[in-house]
Amino acid sequence: MATLKDIGIAAGINILTAFIFFIIFAVLRLQPFNDRVYFSKWYLKGLRSSPASGGFLNLDLRSYLKFLHWMPEALKMPERELIDHAGLDSVVYLRIYLLGLKIFAPIAILAWAVLVPVHWTNHTLELAKQLKNVTASDIDKLSVSNIPEYSKRFATHIVMAYAFTIWTCYMLMKEYEIIANMRLQFVASEARRPDQFTVLVRNVPPDPDETVSELVVCNANKLADLVDQRKKLQNWLDYYQLKLSRNNSQIRPMVKLGCLGLCGQKVDAIEHYMAEVDKTSKEIAEERENVVKDQKSIMPASFVSFKTRWAAAVCAQTTQTRNPTEWLTEWAPEPRDVFWPNLAVPYVSLTIRRLAMSVAFFFLTFFFIIPIAFVQTLATIEGIEKVAPFLKVIIERDFIKALITGLLSGIVLKLFLIFLPSILMTMSKFEGFTAISLLERRSASRYYIFNLVNVFLANVITGAAFEQLSSFLNQSPNQIPQTIGVAIPMKATFFITYIMVDGWAGIAGEILMLKPLIIYHLKNAFLVKTEKDREEAMDPGSIGFNTGEPQIQLYFLLGLVYAPVTPMLLPFILVFFALAYVVYRHQIINVYNQEYESAAAFWPDVHGRIITALVISQLLLMGLLVTKRAAMAAPFIIALPVITIGFHRFCKGRYEPAFVRYPLQEAMMKDTLEKAKEPNLNLKGYLQEAYIHPVFKGGDGDDDDDSVLGKLEGEEVIIVPTRPVPEEHSCSKQDQRRVFSVFGRY
Amino acid sequence: MATLKDIGIAAGINILTAFIFFIIFAVLRLQPFNDRVYFSKWYLKGLRSSPASGGFLNLDLRSYLKFLHWMPEALKMPERELIDHAGLDSVVYLRIYLLGLKIFAPIAILAWAVLVPVHWTNHTLELAKQLKNVTASDIDKLSVSNIPEYSKRFATHIVMAYAFTIWTCYMLMKEYEIIANMRLQFVASEARRPDQFTVLVRNVPPDPDETVSELVVCNANKLADLVDQRKKLQNWLDYYQLKLSRNNSQIRPMVKLGCLGLCGQKVDAIEHYMAEVDKTSKEIAEERENVVKDQKSIMPASFVSFKTRWAAAVCAQTTQTRNPTEWLTEWAPEPRDVFWPNLAVPYVSLTIRRLAMSVAFFFLTFFFIIPIAFVQTLATIEGIEKVAPFLKVIIERDFIKALITGLLSGIVLKLFLIFLPSILMTMSKFEGFTAISLLERRSASRYYIFNLVNVFLANVITGAAFEQLSSFLNQSPNQIPQTIGVAIPMKATFFITYIMVDGWAGIAGEILMLKPLIIYHLKNAFLVKTEKDREEAMDPGSIGFNTGEPQIQLYFLLGLVYAPVTPMLLPFILVFFALAYVVYRHQIINVYNQEYESAAAFWPDVHGRIITALVISQLLLMGLLVTKRAAMAAPFIIALPVITIGFHRFCKGRYEPAFVRYPLQEAMMKDTLEKAKEPNLNLKGYLQEAYIHPVFKGGDGDDDDDSVLGKLEGEEVIIVPTRPVPEEHSCSKQDQRRVFSVFGRY
Repeated sequence: MATLKDIGIAAGINILTAFIFFIIFAVLRLQPFNDRVYFSKWYLKGLRSSPASGGFLNLDLRSYLKFLHWMPEALKMPERELIDHAGLDSVVYLRIYLLGLKIFAPIAILAWAVLVPVHWTNHTLELAKQLKNVTASDIDKLSVSNIPEYSKRFATHIVMAYAFTIWTCYMLMKEYEIIANMRLQFVASEARRPDQFTVLVRNVPPDPDETVSELVVCNANKLADLVDQRKKLQNWLDYYQLKLSRNNSQIRPMVKLGCLGLCGQKVDAIEHYMAEVDKTSKEIAEERENVVKDQKSIMPASFVSFKTRWAAAVCAQTTQTRNPTEWLTEWAPEPRDVFWPNLAVPYVSLTIRRLAMSVAFFFLTFFFIIPIAFVQTLATIEGIEKVAPFLKVIIERDFIKALITGLLSGIVLKLFLIFLPSILMTMSKFEGFTAISLLERRSASRYYIFNLVNVFLANVITGAAFEQLSSFLNQSPNQIPQTIGVAIPMKATFFITYIMVDGWAGIAGEILMLKPLIIYHLKNAFLVKTEKDREEAMDPGSIGFNTGEPQIQLYFLLGLVYAPVTPMLLPFILVFFALAYVVYRHQIINVYNQEYESAAAFWPDVHGRIITALVISQLLLMGLLVTKRAAMAAPFIIALPVITIGFHRFCKGRYEPAFVRYPLQEAMMKDTLEKAKEPNLNLKGYLQEAYIHPVFKGGDGDDDDDSVLGKLEGEEVIIVPTRPVPEEHSCSKQDQRRVFSVFGRY
Repeated sequence: MATLKDIGIAAGINILTAFIFFIIFAVLRLQPFNDRVYFSKWYLKGLRSSPASGGFLNLDLRSYLKFLHWMPEALKMPERELIDHAGLDSVVYLRIYLLGLKIFAPIAILAWAVLVPVHWTNHTLELAKQLKNVTASDIDKLSVSNIPEYSKRFATHIVMAYAFTIWTCYMLMKEYEIIANMRLQFVASEARRPDQFTVLVRNVPPDPDETVSELVVCNANKLADLVDQRKKLQNWLDYYQLKLSRNNSQIRPMVKLGCLGLCGQKVDAIEHYMAEVDKTSKEIAEERENVVKDQKSIMPASFVSFKTRWAAAVCAQTTQTRNPTEWLTEWAPEPRDVFWPNLAVPYVSLTIRRLAMSVAFFFLTFFFIIPIAFVQTLATIEGIEKVAPFLKVIIERDFIKALITGLLSGIVLKLFLIFLPSILMTMSKFEGFTAISLLERRSASRYYIFNLVNVFLANVITGAAFEQLSSFLNQSPNQIPQTIGVAIPMKATFFITYIMVDGWAGIAGEILMLKPLIIYHLKNAFLVKTEKDREEAMDPGSIGFNTGEPQIQLYFLLGLVYAPVTPMLLPFILVFFALAYVVYRHQIINVYNQEYESAAAFWPDVHGRIITALVISQLLLMGLLVTKRAAMAAPFIIALPVITIGFHRFCKGRYEPAFVRYPLQEAMMKDTLEKAKEPNLNLKGYLQEAYIHPVFKGGDGDDDDDSVLGKLEGEEVIIVPTRPVPEEHSCSKQDQRRVFSVFGRY
């Protein structure tokens, strides 16, 4: 049990750490050679092409004095401008942090004003100390543990639980409304975008009578692999050529052909890679011909563009044919949001894949610790000696022995947790979602569940997830909230430390951008030849909804669970939300690249998860009160989750359609406006190039690409595989008959 | 524990009862004076207007010999003809019984061929009898109880569980496909129906600038009440006039004005009712004026009809405006299916009502027994004596005492169960559904849950529902399937008896139509004056989806649960399905009136509930095997519910859209066909009168109605409240501006 002093020291350390991070950041960002790392967004937008101050090092000492100046700077940009600058997704993402502040600031004040005195003025723990020699800290004096059993003071907690629920729901509803309006406004005010006119049609049934090659998306997956491979080879070639030119000596670099370049025949590196690049280029050309000609590589999916937004909106929202698994229409994602490999997944396979992934995720969540534990047994001194006896001499040394014992087993778990988001993304990809935004949203919801089980629950009731699973299966449903509820106040100090390390210092570390910084400088040192290469060397990453949002949700959960129990925790959460808001706002303005724009389509998920946290907090409070023999309180609290779920259903019906469907009124207004403004707009030309598989898009910097695309274009763009089919398209009427038979009416 | 002989005797009694019912039925239906009861469908369709044989009694003795002749007769009508005769709903409803036969006939054969020998050839129960003096019957020898713990024979049960699941799922999928096709074909081949062109728009927002009275549905609820009241008064008047004319004496009937006609001032009945009818008629006229003029009685709902099916289909499936709770569009129900009082319920109220009804239903299911028990304590001898001491003399007599003790407490429960469907219907009405078909479907699903808890569970583990609820809350989720599973084989004889009484004899009793028969003859004796009155005297009822379907589902559940445990039960279920199929086919052909036509929209519910039964049966089998120490079997069985749920999700995606949405292709085809066939069709005229509130529809047999309707029509039908608004309607453009701004584009 930590005392207030311990917490104070820990807070001090973490604040210091954060402060040090900020100072390092301030120094690093002012160096011109880091400019591309810390202002990459501006470079990407083309608003900046060289550092503000010249030279290699920044020697203007005055600028270092204002080392926290980026904070007000980050807050300055108004929301409207930020939407233009970084997209609606980013702005709404930031609003999650703001929502945290809006929810928890009044709750914290109320809890401190009411609950802290109610808790503090009891003497249960002091008595327990004297009688049973129980250790209790000052923090426990501030928590519900200090109230004796059967106390009438628990009435306060019930009233507070209602107050917290009502306030949270009110803020959630207001926010939902604001964001729904922002989304609709954004969609309405936005410039013309190809996805407004386009519908993705999936499961186009094969028709033996007609060739469909000219109407549908081609399966360019193999082609994409080849293009990737050539790019890698080209990179190696560049690298060796660079090496040669830098060396200035006549020793040509050599490379071994065996596995990982460690064994096998030695050959001249440059010649080898040149030959390989040539070979792959030929394969690509061949494959491209195949793709265009071959019936088999045609995917049963198509992007169909319409002349009006209204027609696209109608088509996306309606069922076309009798068989509801054929000619499935849905909104086309933004061109950059399309996840091409998944367009071809047939309907039956989709169901099986989803089922398989649900089962796999269940095992991942509850049993991931078993293989980890197995690897950990290998990662002990004895384990390593057994597998690789020749390492004995090294690892028997005291220092290394200590290092292995101390770190290795931890590292295995840490490595798994680092790779977890990628594992979840792979699972989502396997499930067959067609847009990157959907992949990220599915991954986020799974990551949230994983965190709930393995961070929250596993730390509240100590034990691995599968142990909890078995204890839950063997416990009565009545008992579960009690078991967890009673453990909640005891874990307050642990979670306070967790918030400081993961929340405060972690967020402050985020701003340093260590990984991209190192990679950028490594690339810069070894690979970059031209200015164009330098541009490509920087990968600023994106917000990372799939990892960031579940992390925020954990803080919502902690805040709501601890608000009536240990109000002490709330200020720490407030600091987290405030700090994270500033840091992420800075990052969004200056660093992150926007991968796609989903117009805040993720908000229903965010809302739903906060509601989940609210219901969990209510159930746990009920469990806690029951163990405190305040059983007469239970009926008052049981009404809360019922009301909360009712509220959720109301919000779902009221606001969710704005995130799923596109009102026809809006579409029509935009169409009319556009017609009036630009009567001679060539929409066909605008839409023709919008949805093209990236490998067909020229300008990869390679010579072949253009020529093949050129050839395609020579044939009147009939064979560009993802070409839209507006009503009066130029290609032969016969080919379009089938599509028209379904979509002709619009 | 009943022996095979006991079961045989019970079966004999029930078969005999059923047989007697059939003989009574055969005699009754041949009497010409019952013709309107047993052939009411033909009278309703206007295909029959007088009994086939004349006279009062049928004296043709030969016709009595063919007393079971109605059975082959009922099976003769081909399905296609039956659809024309009684609608698709009825035909698909019959297919549920057929599906039961198709699922359980092969399962029964397989279970008897494989499981019965496996069970029979053990000696566990014999040993137990000898050692521990346990009583066990022959039926238990045929059940899984006869297999010793740890036996390897349980492998058979796992294989059988897989076989049963696969077969059931296969039949379910085939049936889903067939019925989806039937539905689409029905919708496509059907004659022109107003609901194909019409969309129900709800939550039309009020607009201060414009009067909407001419575009929307009026709130005619009060008017409807008044019309009802007048009808009742009129009936009383008729009754007394009739009485007077029959009496032939000069004593005019008198009536007391106090409560229930028991006390108060005595007045001349005919004069009194004449005055009352007049008064109400005036009120009606007034209210009608009000409804048409008053802003407040305008409901924010409207039936909007389009000139093409395509436009209606598009409008029904899309979101119209930004605010997703305004201008809500959905398919209009059939005109006779519309539930008028609910059209006006606003969105927020809808959410609250649904939440309240969910909570109420929870309490109804688990705690209904508490008020029943309270009333039962009143319904004892002592209770009655306390409340009404003056009855003491009567009820102290031995015979009456025995009657009260024996029957009364049972009657209270029985009365509640009789009224339960009406209670559930009232709850559904309160929830705000806009169509009778939806009301019935919601009631059915609630009735199913009620039966599951209070018939199935309460009889398996003896005890009231709330006792089970508390024991489930206090038991681990692992334990629940075991507790129930282990009780399952012991209750086999109870359920066999239940099937025979409720299933066999109950169904046979259904054909007698006792209640309508008695009511018809009572009305015939006292109220009927003219032929038209006689027509109205007969209320044949409808299939009663809300009570019938949950009953069938109980048999599906029993069959699936007992198939691997006590195969003995399966033949009884088969007899039920076969008998019910014949009886209901006869009733649908000859008796039941079709209240509405939803084109089998209920099938997803039916499918879902059979899947639920399947999953329950798998979980219970798993629980049973665990208690039989065949724990190694559990992992094999746990895969079954996962697969079943996966299958359900597949079916949902694959077939359900056909029941929810209307494919545009179909709509367009029908439109095109119609245009080619009848180019000069006056659709406007056809649609104008379709959706009119019943109180505005003339021809109630009352004089005022027509005149008011006439007045309405005099004003160019502008004020007929539920008038459709086709694009080129004749009424002033200004009034339609708002509707056009939303729907004008189609």
